[in-house]
Amino acid sequence: MSSTVTTKLVYDFSEGSRDMRELLGGKGANVAEMTRLGLPVPPGFTITTEACIAFLRGGREFPPGLREEIDEHLARLEEDAGKRLGDPDDPLLVSVRSGAKFSMPGMMDTILNLGMNDRSVEGLAGLTGNPRFAYDSYRRFIQMYGDVVSGVEKRHFEAALGALKGEVGAAQDVDLTAEDLKRLVGTYKAIYQEHYGSPFPQEARAQLDGAVRAVFESWENRRAYDYRRLHNIGHDLGTAVNVQRMVFGNTGDRSATGVAFTRNNVTGEKGEPFGDFLVNAQGEDVVAGIRTPHPLHDLKGVLPEAFDQLMQTMDMLERTYKNMQDVEFTIEDGRLYMLQTRNGKRSALAMARVAVDLVDEGLVDERESLRTLVDAGQVRQLLLPQLDANSAADPLAVGVNASPGAAVGEVVFTADEAERRGREGHRVILVRDETTPDDLHGMIGAQGILTARGGKTSHAAIVAVGMGKPAVCGVSEIEFAEDGSGMRIAGVAVREGEVITIDGTSGKVFAGEAPLLPPQADSPELLRILEWADRVRTLKVRTNADTPEDATRAREFGAEGIGLCRTEHMFFAEDRIPIMQQAIMRESAEERAGLVEQLRGFQEDDFAGIFRAMRGLPVTIRLLDPPLHEFLPKLVELEVEVAQAKQAGTPDAEKEALLARVHQLHELNPMLGTRGVRLGMEMPEVYRMQAGAIMTAALRVRAETGEAPLVEIMIPLVAFEEELRIMRELVVEECERVLAEAGGERIDYLVGTMIELPRAAITADEIARQADFFSFGTNDLTQTTLGFSRDDAEGKFLTHYLQRNIIPTNPFDTLDRGGVGELIRIAKEKARAVKPHIKLGICGEHGGDPDSVTFCHEIGLDYVSCSPFRVQVARIAAAQAALEEAPVSMA
Amino acid sequence: MSSTVTTKLVYDFSEGSRDMRELLGGKGANVAEMTRLGLPVPPGFTITTEACIAFLRGGREFPPGLREEIDEHLARLEEDAGKRLGDPDDPLLVSVRSGAKFSMPGMMDTILNLGMNDRSVEGLAGLTGNPRFAYDSYRRFIQMYGDVVSGVEKRHFEAALGALKGEVGAAQDVDLTAEDLKRLVGTYKAIYQEHYGSPFPQEARAQLDGAVRAVFESWENRRAYDYRRLHNIGHDLGTAVNVQRMVFGNTGDRSATGVAFTRNNVTGEKGEPFGDFLVNAQGEDVVAGIRTPHPLHDLKGVLPEAFDQLMQTMDMLERTYKNMQDVEFTIEDGRLYMLQTRNGKRSALAMARVAVDLVDEGLVDERESLRTLVDAGQVRQLLLPQLDANSAADPLAVGVNASPGAAVGEVVFTADEAERRGREGHRVILVRDETTPDDLHGMIGAQGILTARGGKTSHAAIVAVGMGKPAVCGVSEIEFAEDGSGMRIAGVAVREGEVITIDGTSGKVFAGEAPLLPPQADSPELLRILEWADRVRTLKVRTNADTPEDATRAREFGAEGIGLCRTEHMFFAEDRIPIMQQAIMRESAEERAGLVEQLRGFQEDDFAGIFRAMRGLPVTIRLLDPPLHEFLPKLVELEVEVAQAKQAGTPDAEKEALLARVHQLHELNPMLGTRGVRLGMEMPEVYRMQAGAIMTAALRVRAETGEAPLVEIMIPLVAFEEELRIMRELVVEECERVLAEAGGERIDYLVGTMIELPRAAITADEIARQADFFSFGTNDLTQTTLGFSRDDAEGKFLTHYLQRNIIPTNPFDTLDRGGVGELIRIAKEKARAVKPHIKLGICGEHGGDPDSVTFCHEIGLDYVSCSPFRVQVARIAAAQAALEEAPVSMA
Repeated sequence: MSSTVTTKLVYDFSEGSRDMRELLGGKGANVAEMTRLGLPVPPGFTITTEACIAFLRGGREFPPGLREEIDEHLARLEEDAGKRLGDPDDPLLVSVRSGAKFSMPGMMDTILNLGMNDRSVEGLAGLTGNPRFAYDSYRRFIQMYGDVVSGVEKRHFEAALGALKGEVGAAQDVDLTAEDLKRLVGTYKAIYQEHYGSPFPQEARAQLDGAVRAVFESWENRRAYDYRRLHNIGHDLGTAVNVQRMVFGNTGDRSATGVAFTRNNVTGEKGEPFGDFLVNAQGEDVVAGIRTPHPLHDLKGVLPEAFDQLMQTMDMLERTYKNMQDVEFTIEDGRLYMLQTRNGKRSALAMARVAVDLVDEGLVDERESLRTLVDAGQVRQLLLPQLDANSAADPLAVGVNASPGAAVGEVVFTADEAERRGREGHRVILVRDETTPDDLHGMIGAQGILTARGGKTSHAAIVAVGMGKPAVCGVSEIEFAEDGSGMRIAGVAVREGEVITIDGTSGKVFAGEAPLLPPQADSPELLRILEWADRVRTLKVRTNADTPEDATRAREFGAEGIGLCRTEHMFFAEDRIPIMQQAIMRESAEERAGLVEQLRGFQEDDFAGIFRAMRGLPVTIRLLDPPLHEFLPKLVELEVEVAQAKQAGTPDAEKEALLARVHQLHELNPMLGTRGVRLGMEMPEVYRMQAGAIMTAALRVRAETGEAPLVEIMIPLVAFEEELRIMRELVVEECERVLAEAGGERIDYLVGTMIELPRAAITADEIARQADFFSFGTNDLTQTTLGFSRDDAEGKFLTHYLQRNIIPTNPFDTLDRGGVGELIRIAKEKARAVKPHIKLGICGEHGGDPDSVTFCHEIGLDYVSCSPFRVQVARIAAAQAALEEAPVSMA
Repeated sequence: MSSTVTTKLVYDFSEGSRDMRELLGGKGANVAEMTRLGLPVPPGFTITTEACIAFLRGGREFPPGLREEIDEHLARLEEDAGKRLGDPDDPLLVSVRSGAKFSMPGMMDTILNLGMNDRSVEGLAGLTGNPRFAYDSYRRFIQMYGDVVSGVEKRHFEAALGALKGEVGAAQDVDLTAEDLKRLVGTYKAIYQEHYGSPFPQEARAQLDGAVRAVFESWENRRAYDYRRLHNIGHDLGTAVNVQRMVFGNTGDRSATGVAFTRNNVTGEKGEPFGDFLVNAQGEDVVAGIRTPHPLHDLKGVLPEAFDQLMQTMDMLERTYKNMQDVEFTIEDGRLYMLQTRNGKRSALAMARVAVDLVDEGLVDERESLRTLVDAGQVRQLLLPQLDANSAADPLAVGVNASPGAAVGEVVFTADEAERRGREGHRVILVRDETTPDDLHGMIGAQGILTARGGKTSHAAIVAVGMGKPAVCGVSEIEFAEDGSGMRIAGVAVREGEVITIDGTSGKVFAGEAPLLPPQADSPELLRILEWADRVRTLKVRTNADTPEDATRAREFGAEGIGLCRTEHMFFAEDRIPIMQQAIMRESAEERAGLVEQLRGFQEDDFAGIFRAMRGLPVTIRLLDPPLHEFLPKLVELEVEVAQAKQAGTPDAEKEALLARVHQLHELNPMLGTRGVRLGMEMPEVYRMQAGAIMTAALRVRAETGEAPLVEIMIPLVAFEEELRIMRELVVEECERVLAEAGGERIDYLVGTMIELPRAAITADEIARQADFFSFGTNDLTQTTLGFSRDDAEGKFLTHYLQRNIIPTNPFDTLDRGGVGELIRIAKEKARAVKPHIKLGICGEHGGDPDSVTFCHEIGLDYVSCSPFRVQVARIAAAQAALEEAPVSMA
């Protein structure tokens, strides 16, 4: 805007179109489009976003020419209506609405009935013969204007309205008479003056200028600023202002107002349009829920002509926008007016149905549908039973939404009981203070998991996400009965065997059986969308799977290999952990190696099972990662036991020795301690055994199937090239030993590393020299880059940060592009500079998050890897990323 | 080396000079220089480093022309000597030595007497009339050649020598007769053949080729590779090979061999040169310590002419090299030969003395002296009493060298006892399992601190470094007596009151009083060097100080402000911690604020004291940083107490409530938990109180002194711009409130942040928008970038990494340039791009490490900040960095 003189600052609705969102805002562009289509839109004009920016940059003064352009368009509007703004006898009333390029809560919204004043209210009353309508309109205007333009809080007006209703004995607003409303106007004006400091403005043109100014200024208020920051919307876009002639749904029984969807927004079915309306009401009443609206269908009987016209209009809008529409309309004395159209928000079910139907109806092609009608984030919901939120009662408590989906079952408090009842065919919810590897069999038997402690990275959460089972964690309101017979949740007693419902999507816990919606994982609509996605995407999708069962399931969901097979859980089985514990207790490397060797057979079976399940597809196996003390009893418990034994005069020497070793291995910050490759360096016998077992398993599976598994061995937590060089040497040595011993044809394998420390990313060029592939471990990389311990952050400061909008999204769910993403980008560039074809992927839950998948596509990774239940989401997100335009969210 | 034909691969000593280190290696260049100076150097030639590289790249074949060039130079050597290599009657013998550009352990070192064989030994015996000498030379040659060229381990030869001595009853090697040695040669040849597989080579030219080849190949052996990697020496430099005519110090009583320094290497005094010699010996005997050498001074009486010539030669060398020299010489039949000269290693004391004396003697100017004669790393040693390592006995145990310097004192096991005895004037060493803030008064009273647990970041270590007191931590061999009366260190009993010595420089612990060297902090030499440094450096040096005492001391050491004033310790004082504990126990923000306000007066006094001490200089105060639970009792101890009380039937409700809150605040990884700005967000009342107290203190000190303190308020642990924006707003609001309340002239202040998380570095452009300055908190930045918890790494895997050469230096001592340094560089560039004049510094112990200071200068920071006792080191290192050439290490 180098010169405001030559720039047009105001557009008549008839001058715009849907392509002018940037200049006219979303609302202005849509109203212009409807006008262009010849639909019955009350006339009006839009003040451009550029005018807003000029206003804000120019010391909050209207830019030169704006006032004149408004005058000009207003004159045209008055001429067209045959009424004048502020006319005492027959006033033109207008609405003023903000409308930025992107829909944006937090800005000033709507002022209706602008143009009312002490004299025109009388004129309107006389003209319409409806003084009640006139005073009702005036008092609404004073309140809205007071609230949004002059900052007089709504509650003052509402208190006065309540007081009046009490005084005259009116149950509802509609019970107030014209006389009552006239009195209320007086009271409202007094309130306005008291709180604002000067009388309510009577001059209509001043009212309009005030409203326009308020919309402009609302662009810079805190909530709007935060919203833009959190959604990466530019602060320099500005908002448009729409000024539109008022039409009235509240002039009598031939008037109405309503909202409608062009298709059922829950099921997605076409059938009849779907919506609500109220006779003799203004728009806000439908949304406010003060009166119960009627289903749109009934409008046919009340105002059949307007209904038919609405149906035709909606059909035309859907064809124009090639998307399900959500419209607002008003009928004034039998005549239909369209006030708004936009893409309609819909359920996951409806999303899939609409995406497929619009292709079948020929409105869009597959790619267009994928790009504009499919919301990858909603796909996840299709794969799990969901709480029917509309029918659910109030929850007992809300915890951390640790693993999505809903489950109903009998409460049990031990893993054994969960397993027992599960085997008997009962649906159970396992409730624990927190879970440990010892609870695994109970978690397998349960429908869902509920814990009193822990966040999204607690054992319960991680295992549940992996199993695709709902989990609610960290419900601090749970108090367990001392005798193990029951618990209280926020004071409500729940005994063993009683039924509860948990909703892992929202974190809510309900008493009894709440209504659930069934999963839609194999709905024909979803399967078609996935087919389209696979044709479009270039990013491969693998899965994180530690068992043949998970691997098989992920394969059914379309996984193209395993990106992360963790080996930790394999050591926790009942017949293995005592061996591992003994090994750790030994300080002699030789003795340790002997014990570790006892695990080799187990590991061979583990890996063989996974290779079989993933036949023909690559499998990345990560060597042992966690801190050693995870294999030992907990320090605090042991400390208490030892102290109590001493106190009782029966000291336990064996436990004391164990305690000493636990102390030795105890770490203040285990996340930053002896883990990953550091463990491999301290106990090389473990990595050696694992590498050998992998190769033996590969040979075994090749012998069975005739096809060699595609083996990728991954060393975790590398920070220095030298660490990887040494461990690679060890792994290769052992693999080659096994191959040489077996004779025959060799099996190729890759050795690579996880990039999960900032140093590894920053020195990726060095580390790449030792690696055949990189897998970005974004969970740990997020922890170290941000300095957030997930365990300590979630439910604590991170939750507060999200609540206070300090950060936009949980960085453990959606990749932090600015920090972690930038490190990944640096690493990719450095690695490819020395090894142009090094294979790059990410593992960690980000691999199943649509925004993160988009990022991975954009920077050119080869694959993402995520839990089995997110593979389908990732396939779609990868396709959408390939279509190079972020999908519109419709949740 | 595009063409080997045109490249000269061999240089006669007379063709080179000291400037040709790159091509001829350090040794070759020095020998050439001595030749050029006309000094008596046995003739010889150097095969270039380029020949080595061509050999290694060319499939380990001598490059074309090399053999011919060697022939040619050898012929000249033979002609000059009038002897021929391998001649049976009068053989030329040569030495073969490696010599890379940088002195580098791990490569093949030296072969003497090359050219000996079964026939020439007889010739030599006949010619010299000294068969003992001839056979002694031959057996030495077989052993050296076998060991370094053919890989026959030395121990086989040594075993045979031992057996022979036993058999003939010889106490020392010199007791063996010619006949014995002749037999030994036979045995050695058999050993060679047995282990190498073919007979000892008799052809002298083949011996030479083998030796040259072995030197070339040793460039690529593991130890040499590791050394280069750790010292950032290019792998493509290659090593030169020096072939030199042998001269013999073992031909009789007019022969000798020795090493000498041009000045006293312990005191630095000029006086007489300083060294050792042996009559009738070969060079290796002096170093090997088999015979006790005589002081150089005695040579005057034995071989006066050679002695005088040596004195003149050394004087000339010192003038040529402008540095104290360390020479090797041999006297053959009364004639002096110089074999080697190099800059001599020296003590810290000698370093300072030599640096100053050489300026006074006019050999170098101040800048040259700073650049080439001062080792900043050694300066630290001058400031503390040091162990006299030459006189110390064997240590009882070795722990973590947590804080340098040595201390002697009576052992005490409680802080109270340390304080009591300290007040009585005793020197005490406080020994604890680990220290806590409760031990502070004891640490103040003690000479040094010894702990059984913890590393360089343990409470003991950090406090000791801050106090400039020696500390040895993590001595796991300490077992405390149950009754508190004593301990055992590695089995040796030490009772309370017994004297021990700790050496925080090396981590050693000694029984009794070990000999110490006194500190030299105000030696005139050091003060002069510091004056020079201040004239040269551009980097400012500040200090990390939390008390007026530390601030004052640092100022005496030349600190130009406080770069980091931690406020944590201020809360731990006896009269404050109960208030803080109560505040933390409250969940209501209002109640908390009330309690926190009780600390305001204390904080005002704290800050006023520091402002007074730093009058006229900037003071950066960091708002409260540590996790809240540091203020509460320890979880494990409390858990045990509560369990024991229950077991005893006397449950303690108050303790149980405390335990519940401790549980709530307990963190799995406190390093990555609710600390720093996150704490400020959770408990804004603390930051508000601190900001207000800072400003009130500043006003108070201005009123007293008439000069306003230079206030810089620092928010720690920021990861997101928004965190800093919010906290800056809060700080500014409170400061302005205090200023407005006080009236009068305002006091300016800066608000900035620590960059101590990778995300903060990566998004420094965003964060800089809210900051007046950045201080890189390199301790924490190292922890998160490398994923190393300092507490858990030191003494555990990090120690093993250092021992195994996986990383070159402790990244908590010397900045990891490749990872952490690169992040700092990125941050600096991003920050300066949006705010070209933003003030940048580092705090943390790296600020006192010479290499890290050099880095800070190189990338253009404004200042470094370090503990008071390292300020002088930093001043010198900053000057050396400004002189743009890394100083030569002389330790």
